[in-house]
Amino acid sequence: MTNVTKVTVDLGEKSYDILIGEKILGEAVHFIADSEKFTDKVLVVTDENVIEDCGVELLAAFESREIPFAVATISAGETSKNLREAEMLYTGAIEMGLDRNSVIIALGGGVVGDLAGFVAATYLRGIPFVQVPTSLLAQVDSSVGGKTAVNHELGKNLIGAFHQPKAVFIDLDVLKTLPDREIKSGLAEVIKYGVIRDANFFSYLEENVDKILSRDVNALTKIIQRSCEIKAEIVSKDEKESNLRRILNFGHTVAHAVEEETDFVRYHHGEAVAIGMLASALISEALGKINYYDVRRLKNLLERFGLDTYCEGCNIEKLYAATLRDKKTLDGKTHWVLMKKFGEVEVVDEVPEDIVKGILKEIVR
Amino acid sequence: MTNVTKVTVDLGEKSYDILIGEKILGEAVHFIADSEKFTDKVLVVTDENVIEDCGVELLAAFESREIPFAVATISAGETSKNLREAEMLYTGAIEMGLDRNSVIIALGGGVVGDLAGFVAATYLRGIPFVQVPTSLLAQVDSSVGGKTAVNHELGKNLIGAFHQPKAVFIDLDVLKTLPDREIKSGLAEVIKYGVIRDANFFSYLEENVDKILSRDVNALTKIIQRSCEIKAEIVSKDEKESNLRRILNFGHTVAHAVEEETDFVRYHHGEAVAIGMLASALISEALGKINYYDVRRLKNLLERFGLDTYCEGCNIEKLYAATLRDKKTLDGKTHWVLMKKFGEVEVVDEVPEDIVKGILKEIVR
Repeated sequence: MTNVTKVTVDLGEKSYDILIGEKILGEAVHFIADSEKFTDKVLVVTDENVIEDCGVELLAAFESREIPFAVATISAGETSKNLREAEMLYTGAIEMGLDRNSVIIALGGGVVGDLAGFVAATYLRGIPFVQVPTSLLAQVDSSVGGKTAVNHELGKNLIGAFHQPKAVFIDLDVLKTLPDREIKSGLAEVIKYGVIRDANFFSYLEENVDKILSRDVNALTKIIQRSCEIKAEIVSKDEKESNLRRILNFGHTVAHAVEEETDFVRYHHGEAVAIGMLASALISEALGKINYYDVRRLKNLLERFGLDTYCEGCNIEKLYAATLRDKKTLDGKTHWVLMKKFGEVEVVDEVPEDIVKGILKEIVR
Repeated sequence: MTNVTKVTVDLGEKSYDILIGEKILGEAVHFIADSEKFTDKVLVVTDENVIEDCGVELLAAFESREIPFAVATISAGETSKNLREAEMLYTGAIEMGLDRNSVIIALGGGVVGDLAGFVAATYLRGIPFVQVPTSLLAQVDSSVGGKTAVNHELGKNLIGAFHQPKAVFIDLDVLKTLPDREIKSGLAEVIKYGVIRDANFFSYLEENVDKILSRDVNALTKIIQRSCEIKAEIVSKDEKESNLRRILNFGHTVAHAVEEETDFVRYHHGEAVAIGMLASALISEALGKINYYDVRRLKNLLERFGLDTYCEGCNIEKLYAATLRDKKTLDGKTHWVLMKKFGEVEVVDEVPEDIVKGILKEIVR
C-alpha cells in the first residue's frame, strides 16, 4: 500500500474512517476480512460501468482473502435509484443468506451509494455497509455522512434513512480515467466546502486550478481530504440535519430546481450546483450580505474549472415554483443558505419572491 | 379524561411515554396539538375495520383542535404489510405535503403499526410518528420499542428500521369490543413477560385469570402496564437488539416456524407464540434447566386462557427447517431463548437437532 490519508468522522459509537489513497480497493477487502464483526458474507452493489473498470481488482482481493461474496450489478444512472431496484437487492441478499454480521459494499457513484446504503439501512433493520465511491462527486460528498435514499416518482430522495457506513475507501486511481465532465461536476462540491467553511481552502483552489485539472495526485489528495474533513466536522456536529448540516445545501435549492426543470438530463448534479451557488451568492449580494467582488470571485473560480454559471432555456416561474417544493422546504418555507463572507454562510428562512426571481433572471439565458 | 397510567421508555433524547387509559384517543390528538414540534399536518394510517370502530372519535378530536389531517386506510391483514402499500402511503404523504414537522399516526393493530412506522422511518429519512394500538397484542408488544417493518415475499419483517414513536396511546375502550380470540392472542405475549422477567407477574396472571378474561378494567390496566414496563426496561437497555432484547423472542423461534408451516392463516401470532413458548419450556426441561413442574405450570396457564399448546397437521422436518431460517438465525445459528426459572431466561446459541425434533414431536398432533 502507498500513502494513505485518513479522515475520521466522529460520531461516538458510530465513528468511522475515510481512507484516501492510490490502490486502495484491496484495502477495503482487508478491512472487512480483518474485522471481527462482519466477515461473514459480502454483497457488492455496483453498476455495469464501474464493475468493468474496477471489478477485477476488487474481486481478486475477495478471492485472495477467501471471503464469500456476490455481486449485484444495477444499470448505471439515476433511474436505478428506486424501490423496485431496492426490492431486487433485498431478494439477492435473502437468497445469499446475508445477515447482521454481513456487509454490503457500495462500489460506484452516488446512485450506487444511495441505493445500496438504503438497502443496508433497511435489510433486517440495518446491516453494516462500506462505501467505495468511484466518482469525485461521491468521494467528496455523498459517500460521507450516512444519508441514503431512493427516489419516488414524485421527487428525488424522498424515501431514505440515515445509516452511517463502517468505513469509506476513496481510491485516487479511479479518478485517472474519469471523463473531464465528471471531474468538473465533483469540483463544484469541492468549491462549496471552501465557500461555506474555509476561505483558505477557497484560496488554495484558486491557486491550484491547473494542477487540479491535470489531476495531480497531491492536489487531488489535498482537495478530497479537505472536503471530507469539512463534511466530517459538520456531520459530527449534526448527524440528522436538524441545524448546522443544512449549510451543506449551499447552492442546492436552485440546483434542484434547475435539475428538475431540465428533467435531470441536461446537467450533472455538480453542474447544477455551480449554477445554484452563483444564484445563492447573487441573492446574498442583493440582501447586502456580501459585495460584488465576492460574487465575481466565486464566478471566476467556477468558470476557470469549466463550470457554467448560467442555465439555458429554463422558465423563471417554473424554476421559482420548484424552489418552493425543495425537500427542505416542505413546510412552506425555503431555507436559503446564503454567504456572509468566504468561509461563512447562514441559513435564512425566507427571501422575498421578487429578489429570488430577479436573481433567477440573471442566471437564465 | 379519566385515570391515565404512564410508563416511560427511557432512551435519552428519544425517550417517550406510553399512556394507558379509557377514552384516550382524544388525548393523542391533544398531545399532537399541544406539541410545538409536529403540529403541522397529520396522516392517520389505519385499516378498514379499525376506522369503522374508532374513526369517529379520533376524527372529531382532530376537527375540534383544527389540525389538518388525512386518513389512509389499508386493507386489514398481514398481506398489506409490503413495499407496495408503503409506496402508496409515501405518495399520499407527498401529495398532502407531509414534512419533518408533521406526524404519522398508526391507528390499528400490529400490521398498521409496523407499516406506518416503516413509512415514518423512511419518508424524508424519518418523520415523527405516534402509535395508537387497537389490539391487545399491539398494545403490549409491537407498538412499544420502535421496531418497524414490512414483509418481503421471501419472509416476514425482513425489511424494516428502528424508529421510536413520540408517544404510545393505549385505549382500554377498544378492548371491550375485541373478539375473544384477539384477547387470547394478546395474552400469550403478556404471559411471556412473566416468564422472561417477572415471576410475581406470572403469579398475578395465575391468580386473576377470570378477571382478565371478563375484561375487568383494573386487571387489564395492570397487565398492560406491567407488560409495557418490562418491554420498556428491556428496550431501554438494548434498543437495537444486540443482546438483552433477544429475550423478547422467547417462544418466537417455534412460533415463526408454526406460522410459516400453516401459511400464516391458521394461527394468530399470539396463538403460535403460546405453542412456541411451551416448546421452549420443554427444550429447557430437556436440557435440565427447569423441571417438569415448571413446564406444567406454564402449560396450565396457557390452557386456562384458552390457548392451544399443540399444533395440528404440521410436519416435524419442515418445522425444524423453518427454525433454522428464523431471522435471528441467518448466520446459521438458531438463538434459542430458554427458561432458567420463572422470571429468568437465557439465550443459547445452539440446541442439538435431536432434542429440538424430539420436542417438536411433543407439540405436534
